[in-house]
Amino acid sequence: MKSDYWLHLKRTVKFGECDSAGIVHFHNLLNWAHQSWEESIHKYGISHKDIFPSTSNKINRGLPIVNCEAKFFYPIELGCILNIEIRPKKINNHLLQIKTIFFNESIKAAEVHIVHCSIDLQTKEKIKLPNCLELWIEASNLENKIKEC
Amino acid sequence: MKSDYWLHLKRTVKFGECDSAGIVHFHNLLNWAHQSWEESIHKYGISHKDIFPSTSNKINRGLPIVNCEAKFFYPIELGCILNIEIRPKKINNHLLQIKTIFFNESIKAAEVHIVHCSIDLQTKEKIKLPNCLELWIEASNLENKIKEC
Amino acid sequence: MKSDYWLHLKRTVKFGECDSAGIVHFHNLLNWAHQSWEESIHKYGISHKDIFPSTSNKINRGLPIVNCEAKFFYPIELGCILNIEIRPKKINNHLLQIKTIFFNESIKAAEVHIVHCSIDLQTKEKIKLPNCLELWIEASNLENKIKEC
Amino acid sequence: MKSDYWLHLKRTVKFGECDSAGIVHFHNLLNWAHQSWEESIHKYGISHKDIFPSTSNKINRGLPIVNCEAKFFYPIELGCILNIEIRPKKINNHLLQIKTIFFNESIKAAEVHIVHCSIDLQTKEKIKLPNCLELWIEASNLENKIKEC
Repeated sequence: MKSDYWLHLKRTVKFGECDSAGIVHFHNLLNWAHQSWEESIHKYGISHKDIFPSTSNKINRGLPIVNCEAKFFYPIELGCILNIEIRPKKINNHLLQIKTIFFNESIKAAEVHIVHCSIDLQTKEKIKLPNCLELWIEASNLENKIKEC
Repeated sequence: MKSDYWLHLKRTVKFGECDSAGIVHFHNLLNWAHQSWEESIHKYGISHKDIFPSTSNKINRGLPIVNCEAKFFYPIELGCILNIEIRPKKINNHLLQIKTIFFNESIKAAEVHIVHCSIDLQTKEKIKLPNCLELWIEASNLENKIKEC
Repeated sequence: MKSDYWLHLKRTVKFGECDSAGIVHFHNLLNWAHQSWEESIHKYGISHKDIFPSTSNKINRGLPIVNCEAKFFYPIELGCILNIEIRPKKINNHLLQIKTIFFNESIKAAEVHIVHCSIDLQTKEKIKLPNCLELWIEASNLENKIKEC
Repeated sequence: MKSDYWLHLKRTVKFGECDSAGIVHFHNLLNWAHQSWEESIHKYGISHKDIFPSTSNKINRGLPIVNCEAKFFYPIELGCILNIEIRPKKINNHLLQIKTIFFNESIKAAEVHIVHCSIDLQTKEKIKLPNCLELWIEASNLENKIKEC
């Protein structure tokens, strides 16, 4: 399985996601970045139930976002088919950064950086990132490293 | 405390809630109806934590929506200040209907009906509506009954 | 091109679309019904710019929603992969009804009905549905009619 | 009119704004920052129609967001009543930065920075910020300056 499969996604801009100026309302891009990450780990083979806590599972680990940033280079219009590229990076044992780049055809239209922190939901202490995510980060960076050789 | 206080609310239409036609995207009205209900019971004195289950409380009762309907009479534009009127009705021991009417000045612009069903989250069986909601329904209908005398 | 291609879609439930009870928040289903319709006509070959007015095109026709209804049969959980089926129906020259059914595996979890009205944006008068949508409705119903023979 | 009136707002966290972990989903905070800005300029006396382009007005100026950043210090739970503080700053003739701080009681829970750029919608050239916004920025900073004397 090549990393292309889970690191390159597509998304078409919908009517209700554009504001009255006919352009994607900015906060959607941050939401899409998160959803793209979910889609990526799902395609890689990680189940939602192993990552996201809810009343119906017994996960005692959370991955709250501690920081996010977005840069908007070009307006994104209704009907636009975005190419989405995901670049994960382990910052340290409990911090994960995900860079998500949105291309309109080959032009970089926007870029979102999100930093997640792995915590114990009971004690609120920082804990090691889950193993499955570590594997996803490694596999995602493998191809880039090979290219660099 | 007059029921006016918790049954009549206001809301201003925001930029990101309008689609590229400059009109409120329809699904926001259904969301606003739910949010208005939350605001109403909160003003009446019911805590969110007594009604809505989450990982942080131990509520074993849910109030999922089983049916909703919306009618749109006039387009609602950006910046519009909506007057919102809430009319709850107990259908039977476990079903609650909430009618939410959105006025643009004195013109009825839209109407949303939502039906909640009270269930036990473990067994998924229908159960009696929570007492605090019963009181809210009664208090909300009291004034109308007095007017009818 | 078989109608299966544009009338049967898929969607995975994301983290931010579920409320604190771990279940899809109801208004998302109405939004998804609209987005599924957009995806369907797009796959059929109709451009967003021919249907949806915005500041950047000169369309003088709108298709506001005049009525919608949703029925929820089973709770839809985080990570669930929904099969979506779309059934359009022309009510009369200016009214279009779209029924959207959401299946969790083969179980019908929810159903949404949306009625659009074709209007002239300047005069607000009702006008004939656009030809491209008429063709999409016909093509969508063709296969069902053949099956019935 | 004291700047307190338009720079200090309140907002209660709703059920559908929390994800299945029972915590506000992060992108809502960016949306709320934008909505708080809208509420602030509206309270100050600026009409939505003078700032936000739509099909129904003839504004030829846009204020797209070119950059945003958010820091999350504490999780924000369902039912929480947030105190919101807005701090605008003119960066140069065409750039406006708005800092929005969210307090849970007196604890700073999150902070959002948004940078808007004033452009001509036809030529896409940068243009001077609208006068009414310049006045709002000045009035908002006046009190702070007096305090510093």
